[in-house]
Amino acid sequence: MEHPIEKYMRKCIELAIEAANLGQYPLASVVVDAEGNIVSSEINSLISTPDPTAHPELLAIRQAAMKRNNRYIEDCVLYTTLEPCPMCTSATIWAKMAGIVYGATQQDALEYSMKHPSDVYTWRQILIPCRYIAERGVPKLKIYEGFLREECKALFKLISR
Amino acid sequence: MEHPIEKYMRKCIELAIEAANLGQYPLASVVVDAEGNIVSSEINSLISTPDPTAHPELLAIRQAAMKRNNRYIEDCVLYTTLEPCPMCTSATIWAKMAGIVYGATQQDALEYSMKHPSDVYTWRQILIPCRYIAERGVPKLKIYEGFLREECKALFKLISR
Repeated sequence: MEHPIEKYMRKCIELAIEAANLGQYPLASVVVDAEGNIVSSEINSLISTPDPTAHPELLAIRQAAMKRNNRYIEDCVLYTTLEPCPMCTSATIWAKMAGIVYGATQQDALEYSMKHPSDVYTWRQILIPCRYIAERGVPKLKIYEGFLREECKALFKLISR
Repeated sequence: MEHPIEKYMRKCIELAIEAANLGQYPLASVVVDAEGNIVSSEINSLISTPDPTAHPELLAIRQAAMKRNNRYIEDCVLYTTLEPCPMCTSATIWAKMAGIVYGATQQDALEYSMKHPSDVYTWRQILIPCRYIAERGVPKLKIYEGFLREECKALFKLISR
């Protein structure tokens, strides 16, 4: 199966809009298997839970592995609206995933946060690219960057401060 | 409160020995608050659960935040027997923790894995130091490296293949 495929990122964007409507960060992820089925889908849940790791990627990876009852989901690809942080990129490596497709970049989020300072939606970043992390782990995940980037970037504006 | 303090790492070592007895990776972590209380303690649970993120650090951070009902545990320090991976180091930053104290280094684990290849206990590493991650996040966590290192390193040998 050749990635990236638009419908999976469209699904992420749809979920991110729902997340914004719930007052959450407008960020979402899906995990897609080798047959093209969506195994799991999650939104960023930081605002509603006391879990500092409730990024959509980490939630979706964990959810997919739980469903499979296997900590390795080697055929699966992660789709996500924003470049995954080092925590979430590392989780894809630990799960031995096949690849990551992301939309907006870390830099996009950083620039947005500087223009729109907020105590609630801080858009804090750990300034290390997804690709940097992926290159230093085993297996070597394929990284597809900036897919539907402008649409994913436009999601940032959906939340108020 | 000045860290590192030996009794917290001794607690981690004790837990890591228990983990080995359960067939888990001999790795453990505790989260210590500003008064010196242990808020949470966890062992590596990768072997028993299908959760690829079940590192002791991530589990302990999540557990501490849940107990506090707050995703920020700013007064807390993480103690852990092995240098935290990029996933777990990032989680300490997202939780705005005060610092990390670790024992054995990533390099120690890498060298051990090369001498003792195993399909079960692979000791896979993402080759990025904890300090590298910590320097690129906000807040800037204090990192105490190699505390009781030899004893923490000796834990690796407790598991069979």
